[in-house]
Amino acid sequence: NDTAPLFTEKELQTAAWIRDAARSDNLSYKILESLTTEVGPRMAGTPGDARAVAWAEAKFKELGFDKVWKEPVTYPSWTRGIEKAEIVAPFPQPLSITALGNSVATPKNGLRAELVEFANLKEMMAAPDEKVQGKIVFINHRMQNSNEYGLVVPGRSAGASEAARKGAVAIVIRSVGTDNHRFPHTGVMQYAPGVAQIPAAAMSNSDADMVARMIKRGKPVSLKLELSSAAAGTYTSYNVIGEMTGSELPNEYVLIGGHLDSWDLGTGAIDDGAGCAITMAAAEFIKRNGLKPKRSIRVVLFANEEQGLFGGKAYLAAHQNQIAQIQAAAEADLGQGPVTKMASFVRTEALPLVKQMHSVLAPLGIEPGDNNAFPGPDMGDLRMAGAASFGLALKADDYFDLHHTPDDTFDKIEPARINQAATTYAVFAWMAAQAPISFGSGQELLKAAKK
Amino acid sequence: NDTAPLFTEKELQTAAWIRDAARSDNLSYKILESLTTEVGPRMAGTPGDARAVAWAEAKFKELGFDKVWKEPVTYPSWTRGIEKAEIVAPFPQPLSITALGNSVATPKNGLRAELVEFANLKEMMAAPDEKVQGKIVFINHRMQNSNEYGLVVPGRSAGASEAARKGAVAIVIRSVGTDNHRFPHTGVMQYAPGVAQIPAAAMSNSDADMVARMIKRGKPVSLKLELSSAAAGTYTSYNVIGEMTGSELPNEYVLIGGHLDSWDLGTGAIDDGAGCAITMAAAEFIKRNGLKPKRSIRVVLFANEEQGLFGGKAYLAAHQNQIAQIQAAAEADLGQGPVTKMASFVRTEALPLVKQMHSVLAPLGIEPGDNNAFPGPDMGDLRMAGAASFGLALKADDYFDLHHTPDDTFDKIEPARINQAATTYAVFAWMAAQAPISFGSGQELLKAAKK
Ligand SMILES: [Zn+2]
Ligand SMILES: [Zn+2]
Ligand SMILES: [Zn+2]
Ligand SMILES: [Zn+2]
Repeated sequence: NDTAPLFTEKELQTAAWIRDAARSDNLSYKILESLTTEVGPRMAGTPGDARAVAWAEAKFKELGFDKVWKEPVTYPSWTRGIEKAEIVAPFPQPLSITALGNSVATPKNGLRAELVEFANLKEMMAAPDEKVQGKIVFINHRMQNSNEYGLVVPGRSAGASEAARKGAVAIVIRSVGTDNHRFPHTGVMQYAPGVAQIPAAAMSNSDADMVARMIKRGKPVSLKLELSSAAAGTYTSYNVIGEMTGSELPNEYVLIGGHLDSWDLGTGAIDDGAGCAITMAAAEFIKRNGLKPKRSIRVVLFANEEQGLFGGKAYLAAHQNQIAQIQAAAEADLGQGPVTKMASFVRTEALPLVKQMHSVLAPLGIEPGDNNAFPGPDMGDLRMAGAASFGLALKADDYFDLHHTPDDTFDKIEPARINQAATTYAVFAWMAAQAPISFGSGQELLKAAKK
Repeated sequence: NDTAPLFTEKELQTAAWIRDAARSDNLSYKILESLTTEVGPRMAGTPGDARAVAWAEAKFKELGFDKVWKEPVTYPSWTRGIEKAEIVAPFPQPLSITALGNSVATPKNGLRAELVEFANLKEMMAAPDEKVQGKIVFINHRMQNSNEYGLVVPGRSAGASEAARKGAVAIVIRSVGTDNHRFPHTGVMQYAPGVAQIPAAAMSNSDADMVARMIKRGKPVSLKLELSSAAAGTYTSYNVIGEMTGSELPNEYVLIGGHLDSWDLGTGAIDDGAGCAITMAAAEFIKRNGLKPKRSIRVVLFANEEQGLFGGKAYLAAHQNQIAQIQAAAEADLGQGPVTKMASFVRTEALPLVKQMHSVLAPLGIEPGDNNAFPGPDMGDLRMAGAASFGLALKADDYFDLHHTPDDTFDKIEPARINQAATTYAVFAWMAAQAPISFGSGQELLKAAKK
């Protein structure tokens, strides 16, 4: 196709310059240091949430973004409270557990019942009700590697209601995580409508191994569980947005970002302070170096991803008539990098441009992907509404060791890794902003998205 | 010296057979599985302590030891209680901390004061009193590797009293540990007589990094600390002892063992369930295979090592007139192995025998050591009293990642590592029991020990 619009040689040179020059930049690392030190935990609806919003607004301004604003996001909030569990018989031992997000409380002073173990959610669902009735269900599903999140996570999100349907009094799961440390992994769960709501908690992999060893001895194993977690009313937080305004097509924009909220146990360094820092630094690098993108580059730090993608939904609601203005969307929410692959979701005419973008990025160790990209959790609904999307896949081999645990802290961040990711986002954002044609957001991609 | 008494060729063959046959044994792993699953945490003076004693007595009998008995060990006990800390200004964040063993409580509802940071204990001791007066001292001494325990641990053991001498209201230290996880490491501390007793706690390495980053910003950093730890009266536990009785010299014995108590945060897998399991399995292997040692092999599981070597002191007090009966002493208290070196502390005439012992063990990857061995914490006073000693050095490169934390759990144990250690102890115990001459315990080594 020799008439396909392409990036000019000069544009390619500028993109290559960004790729090489940004590698020695340290801004993403510094932004993340600031967020984790000056804000720390920022679970949706807590005082840390409000502090994070204030931090983000101030940081965007400090970094010289042309426009900085907030858009409200309202959601039901939840508080953690007390969380304790101990095996009371036959071998008394305390466990390291944490409540799952949205879990109801146990009765005050806890509940006590026999454990019934299942290898995974499906096995529990196939069991006769009598086996579960009056018991605490223990889903002992080991997540072997980072590809198994989707496989294992239903035990966390849907396990409580499925157990309650069979008469269980509570559910405790092996943490959905790949580490071998004694940290429980929290994460959100949902109650199915019309089903009794039973308390739900996760224990560390170390504890799950131990409990399984006890159960293997063949005597009934009894657990005492005490949670005081509770729903806590409606809260309004904000998507915090910073924009570098385009010089030629200011109303079209490249959409990047991460989610600003974290779980409360750690300081949200990899989930998802890293995504916020990577994308803020990417946009700032372009501006600081005097490059003037044709289209705008918009960085959105989404509110409350963790408890139900509330920020992403609010963003779509507020901008649903402007999907065609989104040149390309790509969220960073899988840790500190590096980026290992670039997939796209663009109209056919734009594929030669994607190929050129990949050629610039390939020296960073980035493989080409397909044209069916998913842009990230908070932008998934935008894609469904027809937004052109990119999937800049972050290396996640250690991500599920840390995520949703107390161990998600800044000391785990390696400057070279996060900087490669920020560099990749800078090249991506610049090239998408400069592209000679639209990537196809709107009606054209809406059909493809619905397939 | 061609008249030196040596092991016979047949004895060497038997020792080599043990070395090769025990490698495929799995008993040490199984014993440790049992202790960590059926007892778990067993801090001195707690119900877990009593359960561990009962477990040990029953396990020795189950393993077919010829004699099993207990010797009382009395000590002051201590309870942990509540432990909480949070930075309250300028950037509110909770910290992951734990009380140090023996620490007094804070006032009810905690105390609040500004932090003053020092790189290590010496720097704090050299500071002017005005710098410390009314503050919470923060000793930020990073333990770089497993050789630095002795260098860093005085900040934990003596820091509180040294800080109190200068008017500090509390002390918090960077954990004495080599990991990068968010686990605080507990461990014992001691108050100097006549000095005000101030609360003492340790934070994880991750938290120490974060607090240091906050302090670097130059504004005063205030900490709220709440501990309800307290002395809790006198408690009597037991050294639990199992003996395989010797066929020719039953009153002489090879003394091996570990300490039965653990800290409360984990399940004491590497500290020191491993040492107990390694030495129990070593003795059992000899008996089960029909070998009849000339001298007895005595396994002592010492009470309350962690809070002040109480079990070791009680053993010496009960046996101080029988030092000459100890053919050789070697404790295992540095994790799961493998053994990497064998040092001795024997009279000169026995050195050719030590050389032969080493020749048998060398294929296990064990290097020869000097003749100035330390037998382990609970046997150190026996050595001072003139007991011939061996130092079977355990590989400790990951030991201080885990020890004294919630993460000291059975899932960290690798069968091949612990089995090599049990094999080494079996060979050592057998050869020491068969040796044609005494290794010199008593008057002969007492002089050397005092040098
Ligand atoms: Zn996330
Ligand atoms: Zn998350
Ligand atoms: Zn120990
Ligand atoms: Zn210890």
